Amino acid sequence: MFSEIYKKNVLNETYVNGTTLFKKYLFLVQKAHLLMLKEEGIINPESAKEIKRGLDIIIENDDFPEEIPDNTEDFYLYIEKILKDIIGEKNSGALHTARSRNDMDMTFFKMYIRDNMISLMYMLNSTLNNILIRAKELRGKKIVLYTHGQPANISTFDHYLTAFAYDLYENMQLILTSFRALNKSPMGACAITTTGFQINRKSVSDYLGFEIPVHNSYNAIVSSHWMTYPLIGIKEILSDITRLMADMSHKASTEVGMLWFPDDLVQISSIMPQKRNPVILEHIRIQSGLAMGYFKGMEDLFLNAPYQDINELADAPVKYFSEGYKYLISVLELLNEVITKVDVNEEKAENTAVETGTTTTELADYFVRNHELSFRQAHEILSKFVKSGYSKELLREEFKIKTGKDLKESDDEINDILSTDNFIKVRKVYGGPSPESMEKIFDEIEEKIKENFSEIKNTDEKIKEKIKNTDKKYSEL
Amino acid sequence: MFSEIYKKNVLNETYVNGTTLFKKYLFLVQKAHLLMLKEEGIINPESAKEIKRGLDIIIENDDFPEEIPDNTEDFYLYIEKILKDIIGEKNSGALHTARSRNDMDMTFFKMYIRDNMISLMYMLNSTLNNILIRAKELRGKKIVLYTHGQPANISTFDHYLTAFAYDLYENMQLILTSFRALNKSPMGACAITTTGFQINRKSVSDYLGFEIPVHNSYNAIVSSHWMTYPLIGIKEILSDITRLMADMSHKASTEVGMLWFPDDLVQISSIMPQKRNPVILEHIRIQSGLAMGYFKGMEDLFLNAPYQDINELADAPVKYFSEGYKYLISVLELLNEVITKVDVNEEKAENTAVETGTTTTELADYFVRNHELSFRQAHEILSKFVKSGYSKELLREEFKIKTGKDLKESDDEINDILSTDNFIKVRKVYGGPSPESMEKIFDEIEEKIKENFSEIKNTDEKIKEKIKNTDKKYSEL
Amino acid sequence: MFSEIYKKNVLNETYVNGTTLFKKYLFLVQKAHLLMLKEEGIINPESAKEIKRGLDIIIENDDFPEEIPDNTEDFYLYIEKILKDIIGEKNSGALHTARSRNDMDMTFFKMYIRDNMISLMYMLNSTLNNILIRAKELRGKKIVLYTHGQPANISTFDHYLTAFAYDLYENMQLILTSFRALNKSPMGACAITTTGFQINRKSVSDYLGFEIPVHNSYNAIVSSHWMTYPLIGIKEILSDITRLMADMSHKASTEVGMLWFPDDLVQISSIMPQKRNPVILEHIRIQSGLAMGYFKGMEDLFLNAPYQDINELADAPVKYFSEGYKYLISVLELLNEVITKVDVNEEKAENTAVETGTTTTELADYFVRNHELSFRQAHEILSKFVKSGYSKELLREEFKIKTGKDLKESDDEINDILSTDNFIKVRKVYGGPSPESMEKIFDEIEEKIKENFSEIKNTDEKIKEKIKNTDKKYSEL
Amino acid sequence: MFSEIYKKNVLNETYVNGTTLFKKYLFLVQKAHLLMLKEEGIINPESAKEIKRGLDIIIENDDFPEEIPDNTEDFYLYIEKILKDIIGEKNSGALHTARSRNDMDMTFFKMYIRDNMISLMYMLNSTLNNILIRAKELRGKKIVLYTHGQPANISTFDHYLTAFAYDLYENMQLILTSFRALNKSPMGACAITTTGFQINRKSVSDYLGFEIPVHNSYNAIVSSHWMTYPLIGIKEILSDITRLMADMSHKASTEVGMLWFPDDLVQISSIMPQKRNPVILEHIRIQSGLAMGYFKGMEDLFLNAPYQDINELADAPVKYFSEGYKYLISVLELLNEVITKVDVNEEKAENTAVETGTTTTELADYFVRNHELSFRQAHEILSKFVKSGYSKELLREEFKIKTGKDLKESDDEINDILSTDNFIKVRKVYGGPSPESMEKIFDEIEEKIKENFSEIKNTDEKIKEKIKNTDKKYSEL
Repeated sequence: MFSEIYKKNVLNETYVNGTTLFKKYLFLVQKAHLLMLKEEGIINPESAKEIKRGLDIIIENDDFPEEIPDNTEDFYLYIEKILKDIIGEKNSGALHTARSRNDMDMTFFKMYIRDNMISLMYMLNSTLNNILIRAKELRGKKIVLYTHGQPANISTFDHYLTAFAYDLYENMQLILTSFRALNKSPMGACAITTTGFQINRKSVSDYLGFEIPVHNSYNAIVSSHWMTYPLIGIKEILSDITRLMADMSHKASTEVGMLWFPDDLVQISSIMPQKRNPVILEHIRIQSGLAMGYFKGMEDLFLNAPYQDINELADAPVKYFSEGYKYLISVLELLNEVITKVDVNEEKAENTAVETGTTTTELADYFVRNHELSFRQAHEILSKFVKSGYSKELLREEFKIKTGKDLKESDDEINDILSTDNFIKVRKVYGGPSPESMEKIFDEIEEKIKENFSEIKNTDEKIKEKIKNTDKKYSEL
Repeated sequence: MFSEIYKKNVLNETYVNGTTLFKKYLFLVQKAHLLMLKEEGIINPESAKEIKRGLDIIIENDDFPEEIPDNTEDFYLYIEKILKDIIGEKNSGALHTARSRNDMDMTFFKMYIRDNMISLMYMLNSTLNNILIRAKELRGKKIVLYTHGQPANISTFDHYLTAFAYDLYENMQLILTSFRALNKSPMGACAITTTGFQINRKSVSDYLGFEIPVHNSYNAIVSSHWMTYPLIGIKEILSDITRLMADMSHKASTEVGMLWFPDDLVQISSIMPQKRNPVILEHIRIQSGLAMGYFKGMEDLFLNAPYQDINELADAPVKYFSEGYKYLISVLELLNEVITKVDVNEEKAENTAVETGTTTTELADYFVRNHELSFRQAHEILSKFVKSGYSKELLREEFKIKTGKDLKESDDEINDILSTDNFIKVRKVYGGPSPESMEKIFDEIEEKIKENFSEIKNTDEKIKEKIKNTDKKYSEL
Repeated sequence: MFSEIYKKNVLNETYVNGTTLFKKYLFLVQKAHLLMLKEEGIINPESAKEIKRGLDIIIENDDFPEEIPDNTEDFYLYIEKILKDIIGEKNSGALHTARSRNDMDMTFFKMYIRDNMISLMYMLNSTLNNILIRAKELRGKKIVLYTHGQPANISTFDHYLTAFAYDLYENMQLILTSFRALNKSPMGACAITTTGFQINRKSVSDYLGFEIPVHNSYNAIVSSHWMTYPLIGIKEILSDITRLMADMSHKASTEVGMLWFPDDLVQISSIMPQKRNPVILEHIRIQSGLAMGYFKGMEDLFLNAPYQDINELADAPVKYFSEGYKYLISVLELLNEVITKVDVNEEKAENTAVETGTTTTELADYFVRNHELSFRQAHEILSKFVKSGYSKELLREEFKIKTGKDLKESDDEINDILSTDNFIKVRKVYGGPSPESMEKIFDEIEEKIKENFSEIKNTDEKIKEKIKNTDKKYSEL
Repeated sequence: MFSEIYKKNVLNETYVNGTTLFKKYLFLVQKAHLLMLKEEGIINPESAKEIKRGLDIIIENDDFPEEIPDNTEDFYLYIEKILKDIIGEKNSGALHTARSRNDMDMTFFKMYIRDNMISLMYMLNSTLNNILIRAKELRGKKIVLYTHGQPANISTFDHYLTAFAYDLYENMQLILTSFRALNKSPMGACAITTTGFQINRKSVSDYLGFEIPVHNSYNAIVSSHWMTYPLIGIKEILSDITRLMADMSHKASTEVGMLWFPDDLVQISSIMPQKRNPVILEHIRIQSGLAMGYFKGMEDLFLNAPYQDINELADAPVKYFSEGYKYLISVLELLNEVITKVDVNEEKAENTAVETGTTTTELADYFVRNHELSFRQAHEILSKFVKSGYSKELLREEFKIKTGKDLKESDDEINDILSTDNFIKVRKVYGGPSPESMEKIFDEIEEKIKENFSEIKNTDEKIKEKIKNTDKKYSEL
């Protein structure tokens, strides 16, 4: 009936998506809708029982053609057809009362995305936890932080890594916000405008594990937020990971060499043993970039759909989402490998910090705090000190010129002030790398991980319990 | 000193951005930082007084070269230089204690974006309010809703327009979420790692109207969220508006003709008076698209920056943001014109609804509810009825065949059931277009507008009060 | 040895790509390189023979593990290892003289893309041919052309469809240009800087079917053009198709109804027989959009790679390209269905043209040509005529007022001038819809198709002959 | 008449674009069209003279309101109005015979883009020339080339820089191709379908400096290629520049330190004299990124326009193009600064090359060429040599084990083979860094620059001569 090309390139794709991605959600919608129709007296108990009988057979058999059968438009209509074959037209036909493929499709898609987003949130939180664990394990290990590719300050690896933790945490908040927009039930919107049957949208929403029904029925069918909102957080995560990998690559490069990876993450050249290429960092970037292609592509797609129903054909984008999602998970798995196994070459960091004079600024600050010099005055002395190749003699001369006094600190004391240990130790201000300050950061992040976990678990279990209840009630039909 | 090209194409641009976009924030940062330094005993009261004297002169004169002066790197250093000219090196130099251009720049940029986002939120909420007002004014006016460009259901204009209101509301929630990520103070991060001075990051944060200081000082310098998060909500808004305009263009087209715009929004052809082209809809799409170019461009830019300090050069992106923001405001102004002035051609909607048989589905539902037919059975009868060209005779015949009974409803009663009025009236389910249902929707949206307004105003005033307090304390230095 | 996650998520993917996408190119590179090494006297004839023996066994067996074997980095090194097992280290080791995985990988990727681009070019040219055939079949069938969604001019379907043909033709020229940039051999660049062996890059280039070797050896390794240039033309094609589908959807919509599709491309509603939804148009748009996601994602990926070697990891992007390419082919297959089966509802076009007065402008032009009125004067008369509801009486009055003369044409003559037939007939200017003018267009396009075909075939056969020669010479080794 | 908001946000913008970007093209179209109308006898010589008189006054006065006057839709209609005021309706009205704002607008836009593209091509060719000059000036200066951020081969700066030259050259070919698609005249397409007047599209095309008229008149109005094709080449250029800057930043970083920039391109830290930050590289990346935002935004915009006329509103995108173009020019100016002033720190390159053993591979190759070892065998010896810390003793031992012979080369000879000088010297293969090979590259590029220049100049002058001819003929009207 349908053109062979159309059938192959469109209908069959949709059918296969139905049998793979959406099957379990489709059956859940059948159950939920059936329960509600019966409870509201829209179909009678006998019909409901009979429909249940048919559905049970189909679900139990779980045997569907691999390719779209002839004279079939999609997987849902195929189910309708075999249900009719089992229980007859009169009863099977009643199940489609007060609903439409429009609201049903939207519902499948949302439930599919919802499950993916919950898995993602668990995974992100465990990534956050791995960051915290590794930051604590490497606590206090020194590393140089750069600005614009130039060594700027000595700091610690835990300070560095927890900075990323905060970004990840913020991204998770974004995902939780988007989840709330996603977790609303379209059922009952029917084609667009609801129905004249006195259905109970609230109870179907509950049966499907949603928080509430979508308010306006046209909105249920036209809004793109169920798809574009989850993308928002995902894209931010990919973007932050890409940025971190770029920086870690720099820190792990031959010349900078402050990060170190074990052999199982490194590709070694047979001829140049000193060449230890942690290409995993680059692979994460590439896979992030490819995932980004999927997610940006979807955003563009939804951008250009008129404000009419967004769903009917949306199995193609949802399938596409599922492909991008695979890359996303791969990226996160690789990232966890990196976080768990990265180590620090403190000696390299120490040397670079000293050679590039990154701690002299602390001596300037010391002068300001202890010798009544202004910041700019102190820096002028230090500037000459650095230019002289760190001559303490010259330092004492310049100090005398500016202040009229002798610099009373001994050479050893000056060396102590200039030490990387001291640089870190004095940075006790909230957010700084000193141990005291980091302790607070650790506690904060630990607290956030717990809160996150509790919110994710709570969300997850609420959905699961609702669906459990649906199954229970359904079994009692 | 600097290459002429570099000066013209880079430094001067940055300087001019300083004197235009960031000047007021720069002076506020000077005040806030000075207050804190004095309160924490890092500089003495006399120095503080003297610095205040110098700053007051500069602020009062408010006279800065239009182009970057020679031997100047940026606007901030220019200010530092003239302050030194007024009050001498010793005191002027003290002001830069325990801070860096890194944390300062980030702070300027965030405050600039913050002011823009607050204005935007007010404007969005007033747009939401205009939608509600117009929806109420046109309450009950009938319109056909389409799926995939095909007439699907008759509904009302208020049902249609409030669907968009929910999307807009959700976008505002997103913006409020992103605002919370934005409204954190970077000050005290200094170059990257805070400082050895015992500064009070909390009090500077308060003086600048921020909610809290950024937790981790490296995060304060590297995170891109202050810029990318606001873009998220803006892009969703532009996307939804683009979608709505595409749909309104369709509804306003010659053949569909259900939306009508007054002459002041229409370009008329001198020769074809029936040609009334509401090109404003297309202009909104185009300007949205151009704005999108800016905002996507920025996202891409931040995506590719390594996880190192993001700010120093970011005046170029912030300037770019300000250009995109102009388009955004223009789009919203035009959208408000459209919403406030759009009208409905009910007759056209009624005719199309009837000609395309969009209400026959309601008769099917009626049969299900009143004559014990299953949904699919009823639809089979109706399908034949439609194919016959709406022959009531055939309808009665088919009914008898399926049910064995006579259809007792009169032709007039059938016509009533098939009427567009009835179609809308019976859709009383939550979210549907019936007057009762819409009343709830109106109430909900009104409530949301109030809540929004109160949150925006609260946020806005909290910032303003904090800054007022800063000015007061500063004046008493 | 390698981390399990790294092996699963990275190495195995690459290995599988090797065994599927790149295998045949890898063996061709082995042959070409071997021939050259022997011809230049870099390896001796006996070694060459022995290597050939080993390769032949491997190629004949064609049996490689489905998953990456342990202690293997990639497919190429796996081949090297089993070659060594067969013929011993001394000879097998010689094959890797004067080459590197860098230039080899680049070469595989380019050959893979090259084959895809040639297939694409054939397919595009046959699409162009289908357009020409269908345009001729529907020659002269009237259709209204729109500007900004408003009826503007009556024209013919062949005029409409051949406009797209020119865009497609131009895109093919772009692809041919990009093909020339693609079809250059990287071999001999080795890691980056060529080699001290006196290899012959020209002969390897010939053996692999390339036009010339890449000039600068660093360019051979760093340039992204082999990938980004083909994307350029593909993206233009997808963009033009998307635009055409948007317009065809409009022309096929219920209200406009000028395009008609046979039942095998239409999804029909069981209840609304008048609802004939050619969703194939929408599916083409969606699939184009998804394909676009892939291709834009790749562009972004290459944009952000530093100007260093681009290839080593590029099997991931090439795999990704192959996924996008599948969508592209699906889109083109569906497009050909649409082009071959689309039909025109002339009556609808005629009615709309008349109702919206699209031909009155021709009467104005007639007045200008025959009655010494200026264009604007004529249009003022016509404007009143239209506003009057086409009153010939008023037309004559207004004509007399403006010209002082009676309008001598009879009502029938005026009707003839206003007819859609006349409107089209008089548009004999080059590029217009009149039969004479279209004849030239047809001839031009036919000529272009022939030229294209000849260029594509020539390119294709040149490559095939070169490779045939390689196989022949190799067999004689 | 028009809504104030609409006037301010839409009409006035368009009007101002008319008076700034498009004015000169508009007047040229007036002249060209007038000449053709007269030559074809469509208007009589007296009218033509009178129209010329009016136009001359307007052009000479060159005085147009800064803001859109009341009751005006756009700049073109304003000109029509004042022409009518000067020469009366009868004659002024004749000028608009056989044309439309559709074809005129398209023509203005194309001519504007054309001028920009010609300037760009000159600038690109002079950039190419600067690359060649600088490559020759720094000829032979050694530099390490990297793969994946790891030192790989020693090479020369001229080898490195000319690699980019080939990419730039290829991009210019792309721009020249796109220029051919751009340089076709839309005039005579009128609204869409040409006209019944027997106009001469060819002569108008010539008068306006176009190559040929667009073939199909609908294509003249709907195709987006005039805008999207130029973007293609521009985006490739920006992408390649971005990639080069990323790599140069790496090479100029503190630790790598092989590229050096003079003080006028460097921002120096007052306290850390060793910190020499060539932020110009980063600024080029940022400005490229922002320009990319514009150009990608435009691509997206055109992607989503239905296949109907593309031009009427396109002044907004063209204006937007002009903003992106400013960034593009700034990027190119900065790039020329970088290319002209960059220098090489050979010592650093030499040290890194030696420390990372990048030349040992040459000793392996030497063994293969001179001592009958296979490539893999030689590499195994070398691998041990490197691991031993370059012990010549061990080298000799291993050589003996593998070959059974003594290594006859002296330590000095081995050192020579391992020298960076030798590494470069032996790479005489086409495309390699040896002086002989580079000589050929220089010659090739020089040839290409000349060819480019001649093609650009030829194109430019052909247009200028045609327009000169138009002015001459017009003056003789």
